[in-house]
Amino acid sequence: MTSAAQPSHAPLQIAITTGEPAGVGPELTVQALAGAAAHWPDAQFTVLGDAALLAARAQAVGVDWAALSGPGHNRVRVQHEPLGVPSQAGKLDAANGRYVLNLLDSAIDGALAGQFDGIVTAPLQKSTINDAGVPFTGHTEYLAERTHTPHVVMMLAGTGQRPLRVALATTHLPLKDVAAALTIGSIVETLRIIDHDLRHHFGLPAPRILVTGLNPHAGENGYLGHEEIDVIAPALQQANGAGIDARGPYPADTLFQPRYLTEADCVLAMFHDQGLPVLKYATFGEGINVTLGLPIIRTSVDHGTALDLAGTGRADAGSLIAAIDTAVSMARHRRAA
Amino acid sequence: MTSAAQPSHAPLQIAITTGEPAGVGPELTVQALAGAAAHWPDAQFTVLGDAALLAARAQAVGVDWAALSGPGHNRVRVQHEPLGVPSQAGKLDAANGRYVLNLLDSAIDGALAGQFDGIVTAPLQKSTINDAGVPFTGHTEYLAERTHTPHVVMMLAGTGQRPLRVALATTHLPLKDVAAALTIGSIVETLRIIDHDLRHHFGLPAPRILVTGLNPHAGENGYLGHEEIDVIAPALQQANGAGIDARGPYPADTLFQPRYLTEADCVLAMFHDQGLPVLKYATFGEGINVTLGLPIIRTSVDHGTALDLAGTGRADAGSLIAAIDTAVSMARHRRAA
Repeated sequence: MTSAAQPSHAPLQIAITTGEPAGVGPELTVQALAGAAAHWPDAQFTVLGDAALLAARAQAVGVDWAALSGPGHNRVRVQHEPLGVPSQAGKLDAANGRYVLNLLDSAIDGALAGQFDGIVTAPLQKSTINDAGVPFTGHTEYLAERTHTPHVVMMLAGTGQRPLRVALATTHLPLKDVAAALTIGSIVETLRIIDHDLRHHFGLPAPRILVTGLNPHAGENGYLGHEEIDVIAPALQQANGAGIDARGPYPADTLFQPRYLTEADCVLAMFHDQGLPVLKYATFGEGINVTLGLPIIRTSVDHGTALDLAGTGRADAGSLIAAIDTAVSMARHRRAA
Repeated sequence: MTSAAQPSHAPLQIAITTGEPAGVGPELTVQALAGAAAHWPDAQFTVLGDAALLAARAQAVGVDWAALSGPGHNRVRVQHEPLGVPSQAGKLDAANGRYVLNLLDSAIDGALAGQFDGIVTAPLQKSTINDAGVPFTGHTEYLAERTHTPHVVMMLAGTGQRPLRVALATTHLPLKDVAAALTIGSIVETLRIIDHDLRHHFGLPAPRILVTGLNPHAGENGYLGHEEIDVIAPALQQANGAGIDARGPYPADTLFQPRYLTEADCVLAMFHDQGLPVLKYATFGEGINVTLGLPIIRTSVDHGTALDLAGTGRADAGSLIAAIDTAVSMARHRRAA
């Protein structure tokens, strides 16, 4: 699906955490990997999950998992992590909260050790982990903490020739706290990370970033708010001084138009609901989530566990395929760099 | 373009304010009306503006304005309002600030007097009016004040068989003030106006309204903010009790998906940049702005004065044609009600 950045001899090693066992993660993983040989001929996949669960879900959705992952087949390999208790599709059980974290920990440790070139995460259910007594606010925050990364950036993207990419200056904050959370320093650091990762993991030699304002009409010269003048414009000036091609702040409601987007490799939105409704509308269920700024490559689906669809085979593997595709492409670019 | 709601004998009377004389309003008006006979056979149009300006812009963009609006042609008529000073395309002049307001006042007065069934406004430049010494925050606020309407609702919409419509619970507020501006009472009143106007001006006998949350993921059960629990859910309950089919609050980033939108006649977003980026992305420059809750029908383009394009004929009349189309359709429905 993606074009190879540069040939290389050893296959790329990609880990997939299959996430919440009662959700669609296990079945989407086996469905996505059914096309692995055709889509990603230069990659090998390590699937993290309970072996019996994966076999059962593969059977439920009609994928010949033994032929794909069994002995003698070296493209897909299962790294067995035992469930806490047997899992039923659609039924959450806190006794499997630790299991979900074990998958993540194994993937992170393997990536940090150089065993994996990238990791792809299927959706998990925060409440399962919290109900198991472990404080957990999200994949992204957990990855940052486990890799000792002080500042990461959440970017969502579509796929295709000219994908829409939207990064966020703030993520999971109550709306009333967003304005106070934006600082010149945090925006500059966010821009630095976007610029770096687009160069080194996305093969873009001169990334162009368009930046939204915080307020309606980007504050309309201060009539509708002052953060554009006091925070965002100075941050852009600093970033420009560091060689980063970031422009703005632009009104969010007019920025997302083809005539502007064709000039951008990434849009930096100031907060969650300013950037993601349009991104998800535009990508039609094939959007993906990338965590920028980590020492490891990590992509994810942009949907949840879809408990009501688990075990039915009716969930759409498009987003997971796109997430794998992006991780493979990023790993190729990093290896070629 | 629109289907007739019910036959009626007297033509519908639509006023068009041509707005900022240095902008694209005058030329878009003559371009849009060049197709009036074919598009709106049951309507007559009163164009408010300086007669010489309109003739000059028509000539610049190649429209035979005399044939369209001259004596003996009763479909389009010019109601002359003299410019303060001659206007040059692209050059703002505060000496014409009063002129722009005169156009609006004439249209509003005519509509309140029953002379017009609806008014369509081309874009104006707030600074021209403010620089003329008149405090002015926007068309919508001015219309509310001049018609003594305490609560109006801004709704943007696309056109077509199943148009996306997005109304706003708050409009032109700094982002940091949005959370505090939302009250149970204001949301209920907004829902009441949307429900009423969709029934009476849009011909929808049972409008279905989907409502976003304020916070990311609609607050995630209080983990990311409490306004969903404290304000939005109680407002929905009150509205439901009054017979209004309003549902939510839903996460804004997943609500704007075809599978949800096909169940909605309107989405109510909590603030400007939550609802409008996706609406404008989806409508591709053919979006329109409708003010709900007024005693008169008013639609507008969703773009600005485009000073750089004025006089060139290169601006796209699509949004103005859509705005006229919607005003005509709304007037038909109101007459039929």
